[in-house]
Order: sequence, then C-alpha cells, then structure tokens
Amino acid sequence: MGDLERPDWSGRLNRAWQQAATENRAAFIVSTPTNLLYLCGFTGTAGVLLLTANARWLLLDGRYEQATREAIEAGTVGPVDVLPVPARFDQALAEACAMLPEGEIAFEADHVTVSTLRGWQKAVPQREFAPTSGLVEKIRIIKDAQELQTIRRACRRLSDVARDLRSWVAEGRTELQVASEIDAAMSRAGFSRPAFQTIVASGPNSAHPHARPTDRRITKGDLVVLDFGGVLDGYCGDLTRMAAVGRIEANAQVLVDAVREAQAAAIAAVRAGSLGSDVDAAARGVLTAHGLGDAFVHATGHGLGLDVHEAPRLGRDTASPVRLDAGMVCTIEPGAYVEGLGGARLEDDVLVTAEGCEVLTDAPRELLIV
Amino acid sequence: MGDLERPDWSGRLNRAWQQAATENRAAFIVSTPTNLLYLCGFTGTAGVLLLTANARWLLLDGRYEQATREAIEAGTVGPVDVLPVPARFDQALAEACAMLPEGEIAFEADHVTVSTLRGWQKAVPQREFAPTSGLVEKIRIIKDAQELQTIRRACRRLSDVARDLRSWVAEGRTELQVASEIDAAMSRAGFSRPAFQTIVASGPNSAHPHARPTDRRITKGDLVVLDFGGVLDGYCGDLTRMAAVGRIEANAQVLVDAVREAQAAAIAAVRAGSLGSDVDAAARGVLTAHGLGDAFVHATGHGLGLDVHEAPRLGRDTASPVRLDAGMVCTIEPGAYVEGLGGARLEDDVLVTAEGCEVLTDAPRELLIV
Repeated sequence: MGDLERPDWSGRLNRAWQQAATENRAAFIVSTPTNLLYLCGFTGTAGVLLLTANARWLLLDGRYEQATREAIEAGTVGPVDVLPVPARFDQALAEACAMLPEGEIAFEADHVTVSTLRGWQKAVPQREFAPTSGLVEKIRIIKDAQELQTIRRACRRLSDVARDLRSWVAEGRTELQVASEIDAAMSRAGFSRPAFQTIVASGPNSAHPHARPTDRRITKGDLVVLDFGGVLDGYCGDLTRMAAVGRIEANAQVLVDAVREAQAAAIAAVRAGSLGSDVDAAARGVLTAHGLGDAFVHATGHGLGLDVHEAPRLGRDTASPVRLDAGMVCTIEPGAYVEGLGGARLEDDVLVTAEGCEVLTDAPRELLIV
Repeated sequence: MGDLERPDWSGRLNRAWQQAATENRAAFIVSTPTNLLYLCGFTGTAGVLLLTANARWLLLDGRYEQATREAIEAGTVGPVDVLPVPARFDQALAEACAMLPEGEIAFEADHVTVSTLRGWQKAVPQREFAPTSGLVEKIRIIKDAQELQTIRRACRRLSDVARDLRSWVAEGRTELQVASEIDAAMSRAGFSRPAFQTIVASGPNSAHPHARPTDRRITKGDLVVLDFGGVLDGYCGDLTRMAAVGRIEANAQVLVDAVREAQAAAIAAVRAGSLGSDVDAAARGVLTAHGLGDAFVHATGHGLGLDVHEAPRLGRDTASPVRLDAGMVCTIEPGAYVEGLGGARLEDDVLVTAEGCEVLTDAPRELLIV
C-alpha cells in the first residue's frame, strides 16, 4: 500500500454492523469477497466475517489462518479475530453461533447461494437466517479519503497507459495483439491485474458493445474501440478511447463526434443531488438529437471502486432513481453502435462533488488517427 | 473454433434434461455460465436456459438477443430457442412457466443466490423450485472427443510457453514483470485469456501456495514457483514449473526433488477405477517419507475443463471418494511449503485412461537454473 494511510477498517466494521443491526439480530455474516476486502483488507478467496455487537470474527481455513494472523499483527488486515475452521465451514459456524446471544443471523443474499444457505440452516437449525441486500455496498458507494487517494492514482496511471495507445494500434495487428500490449503496459504501470478482459474491437466488431478481442487484423478505414481497466491496490480504473486507421467514412466521423458531445453533456450533468437518470438523459438526448438514440444500447455509466461495476448505476431507470452524492466515483461512457458502420464509445472516470464533478482520467479524448 | 468439429450440443442438452428429469418436474433452469457454455455454446454474462421434455428455451435480454439468434443460425450456438426478456427477467420466466405443464422447476442451487431464488418465487408463486447440485457437472466430468481435441491443443501450447520460461525469469526482475511476460506469451500462443492470475512466487513468497505476484525482485538463491494457465476455445490448461536463481540451499534442493518424486508417484497412481484419494495418498506418502507431510497443505489435483477448477478433486477426503474414470482430465500438482526455506510445486495435466493416464503437458520438468 506504499505510503498511503491505512484504511479506517474499525470505522467501516462499525458502520457495517450498524447497517445490519436490528433488535432481533445476533449477527451479520459478510461473505462477498469485495466486502471482506473493504471491511478488513482480507484478500483470500474463502473466508467469512461474523459481525456482532461485540465481536468481529473472521472464519478461515488452514490455507489462510496463519498468514492472516500475521497480517493482522502487521496491520495490513484490519482488527478482527481469526476463528480457525478445522474441517467443515458449517461446523465452525455452528460453534461460533453457540457463543452468541439469541437472535437471527443476517446474511448477504446477493452473494450466498441456495446451497450454502441450506448448509448453514442444517448446521445451525435453531437460528433464523435473514436475507439482506446491499448493506455494505451502501457504505462503499461513498469513497473515503484513503480510497480516493488510491482511485486518483489508478486513474492517473491508466491515463498514462492511454497516452501510449498510438504505439500499439496499427494496421495489420490483431485485436488480441493490441489487447496484450495494453495489458502488458498496465502491468508495467503497476496495476496488479486487468479489471476486466481488455476490449479491442475493430471495424465491424466495434458495433458490438460487449466485443471480446479476436484474431481479426486491424484494417484501413477501421474504427477501433479500446476499453481497458486495471486494479491498483484493490481499486479499479476504467477508460475507453477510440482510434481510426487512416481515413474513416463521414458517417463514422459523425458517430464519433456525437458520442464525444454526448459524453461532455453527461459530464456537465453530474453533481451532488442530480439523479443517475438525469446524467443518462443528458447523454441520450444528444445522441437522440443526432438520430442515434436507438444506437445507444447501454447505460451511461456505473460506479467504480473495489468492483469495476458497482453502485450507482447511471441508466435510464427512472423507477428507482439513484441520487448522486459527493464522494461517489463513476464512469461516464456513452456509446453508439450501428451494424454495418461500426461503434464508438468514450469513457472517463469522475468523482462527484457538491458543485459538479472532477474528471479523474485525463488522457486526450480526441479520436486517435493511426 | 478453427477446424474443430462442432460440439454435440444436442446430445449434451438431452443428457442434461435426463439428469434433471423426475416425475414431478416440469423444467430445469440452467444458469451457471460454464454450464450454459457447455450445453449450447452461449458465452454471454446474462442468460438462462430453461430445459423441459420438449423445449430448450434460452432467455436473453436485448444485449444478447440478436447476436445469439445469428449465432444459432450460423451454428456457433447450439439448437435452442431464444425467448426475449424485454424488461425484468423474473417476468419473462413467469411467462415461460405459464406455458409449461404442471410440476416443479429444478434449478442449480450451487449457482443461484438466495436473492435470485426469492425473485423467482415471487414472480412464479404457484410453482415449487427444487434445488439441485452438480447435474450438468456430472456430465462435464467425462470429456468427449471434441473437448479432448481442444484440451490437448491447450496443453500443447501451454507447454510451448513453459519452454520459454528461461527468457523471462532473471535476477533483478520483479515477480509482476515475469508474470506479465508469461501472460503476453500466452496471448501470443493464442490463448484468449489467462485461466487465473498467473503466480510468480519467489524466495520467501514461494512458501505461500496462493501467492500473488508482487513487486519483489528475484534474487540470487531464490526458488521461484511459476504457475500459469490459459483459456483456449473455452478450455483451460494449467501448468506449474520451478526455477532457481543460481545455487540454492541443499534443503531447498531436497524440497524440489521430493516434490518431483511425489508428482511421479501420483501420476503413476492415476487410472480408471482408482479413487481420487488414492492418487493423493501416493503423492502424500512420498512427501511424508521425506518428512514433508505437513508441508503439503493442499490437494494433489483438480479436474480441468471449461472451469480451471472442476470435478474430480484429488484430495485427502476419503469420506466421499471420487472414482476416476476414462475421459476425466485433471491436474497433478503436489507441493511442499516451508516457512523460511521456500516452496516447490510441479503441475501437469493428465487424461485418465483405462490403463493409466496420458500426460498432456510435456514441457521439461527439471528445475530451471537461471
């Protein structure tokens, strides 16, 4: 974590229990990996945190027990008590529950599978298990100072990678080759891994918003969508730029210009108090005015943090509107996709502020001509 | 998919329904992404297959609908009927269920979250939802000819990457740099992505079986564990080799030799009819004889296919033993980890046959001295 301050794990753990606590609840089981990472810095693939009014127990099997105890001592994992899981997890949970006062056990219903819950119910038949949704995510949606420091750094480095795109996008190269160059550059820039499979979508493939890179060779006249993200100290940056190989069709240029205009309008609409759907409407309005409303088939953006897709969603949904608040971080990424012509998307990461937003990714937004 | 034959989707879909069918079942919902990929070649991130005695409905939202219809026509997605999901998935499921005869709906309880099931139950209150576990996985455990052709190719190419390890492992380089070189080589070899985060664990880090690459610089006297895998046409290869930087301690050499001997013993124990725990015992016996029984903290291997970890598990568990059968593919990867000394692991992929096994990864197993 370099010279960064340690996350305020104690505060986060307290707030998580406060979110879950009700009169008849004895405990809250946190099992979603990114929530574990957020609450105490645990990065293993198997572990469960049992929060109560008085305790913070991290149940771990033999693979993680010793290393995590050392990490807690060193301060790189938060203030939790490790409970070893000698054999079956269900059994260890039953033993932990036996130490608790009466009351139901809350759990994260968006992560726990039906099989897992059935195992718990069988091992701890005398307790009620109460499904909850988004409790820790509600805390995570506002980034604290330590998180913002990391996210700013991730966005700066990702922008540096974007500034080198010209070195890799070239006629005759395959999409997979270019994606591999971008991944290697992210690694050199200090990212521990790509945040998702890097998208390099050229020519006809650019018309598919969810394209995966193929062995198609980049060809004269192509539009190329380059969408990549990296994970730095746990936090994700996410960025999309566009390239063109030589001269592109006039219609393709219209697409590119409209998307750029839509992105600027969406960024201008971001501020604390706006709705996510307002920001989406700003982008969608511009594209519709250019006759491209139907070509914009996804949302304008999504929250960004430990997960590359998290709350808030900036989409069309006005039924359950999300109100933006200072400290939220999200992508602004309108796009337009036209079969037979190609696709365009431009994506930056912004921090919502009281007055508007701060754009965290600063690589040039111009269409890159190669 | 190059010149490979198309998978036998129709046969797989029939077998999946046969696995799920009971007298009082109207349908079986398949939602696990790799099971969808196996049964019909669908690769999207959101889609659900509803199998009945007479129908194979793939419920898809707008992002995937058109592209999947075209893929079905082109034969790159199997013989299923696309049912569009115009708005909410729950609602589309309710409409599909209304067309079915009486009976409960089976679902995959190891994948479906408690939240998802609650949504289904609310949308389709008149139906019982019946949890099932591992039905499609039971079919997937035996690889068919088309799958073996792909897996052989993946293992061959991964072995080619391993033969170049010498070019990247060097004193002064960081673990992350070496991992990035391996990832780039896998990409050049045609893999669409790494099967998991490439492990380069040097010196003290090699003592942690689940180490992630760090910015530690490789140093004289280090043992280095290099564990990497790639995905080729959907199928995973997985391979681990060891390097040493210059002269290593005598004790470290003992570790390396013991692990190599353990791996050979385990490979010799693989054949149709053996138990997974027999193979594990063969490796564990060798390591125990060298006083390293406690240093071998994981299972000897795991199945390999569309998932990088799938059935069968070759572990110590003799309570619910897995019997090996011809056509299974698994890793054989004993290891030994000693705090203060380092760790060693050697991993190859094998195909179980009636008489023994065929080792699919053929890169040299010798300790690479750099």
